[in-house]
Amino acid sequence: MTVFTYPQKVLFQHCDPAGIVFYPRYFEMINATVEDWFDARIGVSFAQMHGPLQVAVPTAALQISFTAPSRLGEMLEFRLTPTRLGRSSLDLEISAVCGDEQRLEMTATLVFTRNGAGKSVPWPDNLRAKIDNEINEMVEKNA
Amino acid sequence: MTVFTYPQKVLFQHCDPAGIVFYPRYFEMINATVEDWFDARIGVSFAQMHGPLQVAVPTAALQISFTAPSRLGEMLEFRLTPTRLGRSSLDLEISAVCGDEQRLEMTATLVFTRNGAGKSVPWPDNLRAKIDNEINEMVEKNA
Amino acid sequence: MTVFTYPQKVLFQHCDPAGIVFYPRYFEMINATVEDWFDARIGVSFAQMHGPLQVAVPTAALQISFTAPSRLGEMLEFRLTPTRLGRSSLDLEISAVCGDEQRLEMTATLVFTRNGAGKSVPWPDNLRAKIDNEINEMVEKNA
Amino acid sequence: MTVFTYPQKVLFQHCDPAGIVFYPRYFEMINATVEDWFDARIGVSFAQMHGPLQVAVPTAALQISFTAPSRLGEMLEFRLTPTRLGRSSLDLEISAVCGDEQRLEMTATLVFTRNGAGKSVPWPDNLRAKIDNEINEMVEKNA
Repeated sequence: MTVFTYPQKVLFQHCDPAGIVFYPRYFEMINATVEDWFDARIGVSFAQMHGPLQVAVPTAALQISFTAPSRLGEMLEFRLTPTRLGRSSLDLEISAVCGDEQRLEMTATLVFTRNGAGKSVPWPDNLRAKIDNEINEMVEKNA
Repeated sequence: MTVFTYPQKVLFQHCDPAGIVFYPRYFEMINATVEDWFDARIGVSFAQMHGPLQVAVPTAALQISFTAPSRLGEMLEFRLTPTRLGRSSLDLEISAVCGDEQRLEMTATLVFTRNGAGKSVPWPDNLRAKIDNEINEMVEKNA
Repeated sequence: MTVFTYPQKVLFQHCDPAGIVFYPRYFEMINATVEDWFDARIGVSFAQMHGPLQVAVPTAALQISFTAPSRLGEMLEFRLTPTRLGRSSLDLEISAVCGDEQRLEMTATLVFTRNGAGKSVPWPDNLRAKIDNEINEMVEKNA
Repeated sequence: MTVFTYPQKVLFQHCDPAGIVFYPRYFEMINATVEDWFDARIGVSFAQMHGPLQVAVPTAALQISFTAPSRLGEMLEFRLTPTRLGRSSLDLEISAVCGDEQRLEMTATLVFTRNGAGKSVPWPDNLRAKIDNEINEMVEKNA
């Protein structure tokens, strides 16, 4: 298994009057990456979570460095690696690169919640197993 | 001088399918707070920066905790405190509260750049003096 | 009673690489205007609609002219006039001006829906009475 | 030549507390469609326009009907057809469908401008020729 990647082009809507990505738009791109990862790798879409399952994975905390600006028209590759699974939390590392140049590097903690984003609750066993598997594959790959 | 505060109501456009603020929208609210602080306290607007002055203050890094969800219609108070002025950087602490409850707490580092967000350059003396004054007032107030 | 007005400053987040408001952001400003009108004039907030009442007022159709560009830092005044109340619809006229200059002019049709934006349903009597009153006041004012 | 199509998935960031696409987000999707059409069919990207060429194609007017709501996770197909080329304007028809169901139908007028979105100027010959060709292909196809 390889690192999860998600390509996103820098569109007009992402850019500010300085002609570079306005940083709140990066978080939309990052959320799209997380959304696609859950769908493609964990097997549960945000449509299922926010529809029949009535669960959510809000971001509880994050730290990010914007290491170089991104310009209109550039193709970015977002990379997501899960690093630690807690009882009801999940740590992720996300970066974005354009060719050889890194544009941002982030660590984030998501939490699993039910019925309207109140208190966090434990991950259900089926999701826990799939996330664990993703983390272990990464660890082995890096070993 | 008091802590800089900026009230913002949680609008429909800020909220996600779970009925709470989607976290990238918080960064739009935070940027609006920073924008108003520069205008009101430092005496230079983003319109001046991105127009005649041809300078910018992009965010280089940040860490944030989302301590409780915010819901449609709530009135949030954003609070901004400058904490450290570097040669070409500025550290800020920003929080948002709704009544007694904290919703987020962030530290961020901005950098001062010229002509299209390339390398950082030293703060000009007039801005440096005003920012320094803001930081000193805060220190005295807390002493 | 006077025309409903809602001031909004052009922020960094509204502007595109040409330094003017990106038109999708105008619709966020327009929605904020509609939201505030319902709260201030009709007595029902979007938080009540999308919370306990389980109703919504989605936009079904609109036409708009962007008559002049708006720039970072400008203060816009949005003006809303209700013009026609149907069984389950409502026509609005909305414009935005900066000083003497018009920036946009729109007509829109909203519909009243229940339980998740499916089919439109008739306005309840209490909302109908208040909206009707708003329209009549405008007609009398213009007579 | 076939009608230009651009697929876009309904993401979390597009959806409102009613769980459907918030209509300002449709305009971001529509702008992405226009952006890709200029790049793929006319041979000029928004990066070239807003960079070296110093031109822009702001939207001057539009009318749109939102014929059915779109939900989180749905795959939409946006379709763009150029219909009329003026001296400095361009009329477009854009629709979005999900499977057999239409979600929106829009006509818009763009204008060609130079150096910061002021007055419109005539299309340069190379762009005029390519847009004309696109329109003629569509007319022949429909004949």
